[in-house]
Amino acid sequence: MDIMTVQSDLVATRRLEGLGGTSLKVVTDGRGGIEVACDPVGVPPGKQVIATRGTAARYAAGSGSMIADLTICGIIDNWEMDQR
Amino acid sequence: MDIMTVQSDLVATRRLEGLGGTSLKVVTDGRGGIEVACDPVGVPPGKQVIATRGTAARYAAGSGSMIADLTICGIIDNWEMDQR
Amino acid sequence: MDIMTVQSDLVATRRLEGLGGTSLKVVTDGRGGIEVACDPVGVPPGKQVIATRGTAARYAAGSGSMIADLTICGIIDNWEMDQR
Amino acid sequence: MDIMTVQSDLVATRRLEGLGGTSLKVVTDGRGGIEVACDPVGVPPGKQVIATRGTAARYAAGSGSMIADLTICGIIDNWEMDQR
Amino acid sequence: MDIMTVQSDLVATRRLEGLGGTSLKVVTDGRGGIEVACDPVGVPPGKQVIATRGTAARYAAGSGSMIADLTICGIIDNWEMDQR
Repeated sequence: MDIMTVQSDLVATRRLEGLGGTSLKVVTDGRGGIEVACDPVGVPPGKQVIATRGTAARYAAGSGSMIADLTICGIIDNWEMDQR
Repeated sequence: MDIMTVQSDLVATRRLEGLGGTSLKVVTDGRGGIEVACDPVGVPPGKQVIATRGTAARYAAGSGSMIADLTICGIIDNWEMDQR
Repeated sequence: MDIMTVQSDLVATRRLEGLGGTSLKVVTDGRGGIEVACDPVGVPPGKQVIATRGTAARYAAGSGSMIADLTICGIIDNWEMDQR
Repeated sequence: MDIMTVQSDLVATRRLEGLGGTSLKVVTDGRGGIEVACDPVGVPPGKQVIATRGTAARYAAGSGSMIADLTICGIIDNWEMDQR
Repeated sequence: MDIMTVQSDLVATRRLEGLGGTSLKVVTDGRGGIEVACDPVGVPPGKQVIATRGTAARYAAGSGSMIADLTICGIIDNWEMDQR
């Protein structure tokens, strides 16, 4: 899973049914990449989250018939790099 | 999902049946990458869209038997980066 | 799907059954990347094609039991970047 | 599979059910990339592991209904580059 | 599929059952990347091979229940870039 930061909502009124009514969030990774993730958790901007890809993202978005390829699956409490 | 900009139609007369008669669009991402996406939404050049990959792209293109690996799934109304 | 250019045949006499007798082609993308694609279309060197990845590549290669992860699915007639 | 080094635990109290109670680990690759992997093996920080992606990661995490996209699947005893 | 060079065996005594007893090989691509592939073909170090990813890698490794995400599927006899 990727460690990403939630930036804002993304509004896409005209969209395929397979996206459902899911909240879409603009998320960034640590290397400047910007992507859009489904957000079934409900995460405010500024929070660090873990997001999952592929078939796992469809399941995480609610069911295998969803057409998400990136879905937020948890809010990170804390993490650190091993200092050894 | 990726944020991409629709550039133009792509014409490929000789193609496998699994692509169906779907409209194909040349799309670009924010880092200069160029790809081809199925477009079941019907998006004119210049618009920003979200596109989905993998099995989600096949479903978004119409059914699991489609052979798309990138499909436009929504037109972006607006999005912004969190300024905090 | 990726826009790729067919370079040459690739000969691999000793290979797993799941590749079948499919023609294998060395293909390049616009950034200098080199990959190998199954070619059920029959494309001569020098042509620009679209190629699909993942489960779509297995279906495009003929069936879900194929072990391809990149398959040529169309010959490009023409494409252009939007000049606006 | 990727060769990765386990750095630390990642705590994410609020998470989707599909992640189960699996241990999550911050892992790094040899190029400075940081990701989060499910750890059904139980690996202490500092160890080099192999991790698998995609549908394989879901199965490796315990079942196809898991929503992992990266799972540790073995601890590396040793490996070396061919010096020829 | 990727063109990769087999470097050496990788020993991972403690591993998940889903990897079976398959031989694991350290493989490199042409850009300095290092990965681990299942090797059902039996390839000595120094050989150039084609390797497949994703669900295709699981099938190539023997069955859909394998947890490989990269599997060697053929030994390359020869390949060349088109010189035109």
